Amino acid sequence: MKPTIVPRATLGRLPVYLQYLKSLPAEAGSNVSATTIAKALGLGEVQVRKDLSAVSGAGKPKIGYAVAELIEQLEDCLGSRDRSRAVLVGAGKLGRALFDYRGFDAFGIDIVAAFDRSLERAEHSDSGKTIYPMEEFGAFCKREAIRIGILTVPAAAAQSVCEEMVRCGITAIWSFSPGQLTVPEGVVLRQENLALSLAYLTMQIKTDSLGASDEEKD
Amino acid sequence: MKPTIVPRATLGRLPVYLQYLKSLPAEAGSNVSATTIAKALGLGEVQVRKDLSAVSGAGKPKIGYAVAELIEQLEDCLGSRDRSRAVLVGAGKLGRALFDYRGFDAFGIDIVAAFDRSLERAEHSDSGKTIYPMEEFGAFCKREAIRIGILTVPAAAAQSVCEEMVRCGITAIWSFSPGQLTVPEGVVLRQENLALSLAYLTMQIKTDSLGASDEEKD
Repeated sequence: MKPTIVPRATLGRLPVYLQYLKSLPAEAGSNVSATTIAKALGLGEVQVRKDLSAVSGAGKPKIGYAVAELIEQLEDCLGSRDRSRAVLVGAGKLGRALFDYRGFDAFGIDIVAAFDRSLERAEHSDSGKTIYPMEEFGAFCKREAIRIGILTVPAAAAQSVCEEMVRCGITAIWSFSPGQLTVPEGVVLRQENLALSLAYLTMQIKTDSLGASDEEKD
Repeated sequence: MKPTIVPRATLGRLPVYLQYLKSLPAEAGSNVSATTIAKALGLGEVQVRKDLSAVSGAGKPKIGYAVAELIEQLEDCLGSRDRSRAVLVGAGKLGRALFDYRGFDAFGIDIVAAFDRSLERAEHSDSGKTIYPMEEFGAFCKREAIRIGILTVPAAAAQSVCEEMVRCGITAIWSFSPGQLTVPEGVVLRQENLALSLAYLTMQIKTDSLGASDEEKD
């Protein structure tokens, strides 16, 4: 499998292709054309070809894609056979909501444990997963070789938790904490700013209603 | 006030400028230079000038910006004097986390009420705000002239709630529900896909560790 960065929009559609291909009855044959897929999913044919070319070769003229092979390639790309395990630090409301959110599954990601500084002993989330006291964070990450950390702690604690994550071997951090974070080279950081997202949307309608031009799209 | 779309990254820094300017002691004088602001906030001077030019005129040579005027312009842009009110539909875990999140305040946005189909009578969130039964949604939005709706319902309900929002006068929808939504022209829709964001981050470290080139940055 050749490692590639699939464009974000394409990645979002891959679980849809996978689900569709898996739903095909055996009688449908061992090949499927881009035209058939596009019709079934209400997508443009050009888009389907382009999306699938990111994970597979091009379909063969008059034959299309080999269904079994394409399923395997999609599963590889989506991590269905090589799942990624993440941990979450900061089991407040947002942290718990993410911890129990089921949508990560389709992308081959499991949030295997959460940690919170306020806990003295482990407890369970609503979905039955374990939230540990922060003291157990380092040992857990090293034992389980965790590479992905989700940060949902208050702003004041974010940088220090971020550094603790890096010390424990985490190389990708997804932060919901406000404020600027710095990570060493080699660590991938993505900072979500929910307030800013909403503010930006709000600004668009304010300016729209005042008749300004809306040149910048997000 | 001239309505403009401020770039997203600039918008994210405006509360920082505002807080700094408000913290200046009266003795500091009625003007402040971009150099002073840049030094105090650890930003580049060029960036400060560019950011502030989006909400104000350019600073005057050797004089800088009039502090009081700049505060007023920032407050206008951030909606501090013309706050935006939003409602939220779907008071599950993520919905409640957003409803009680304090970070929207700095951008002049209040989530004034939440609604949930499962409630028979109104109840309070952890921060003491009211969550109403869905039956009261339409009357509330019309009475309060709400224009911004936040959607945190399960995928199956998302499109119908989206349509209900539009019928009730909402013109900007911020959705966390998975699946494609369609809105009529004139309605601004922003769809967050948290699972996709994490998947994209994960893919970056997977390909990094396999030595692939990382051409596409998010």
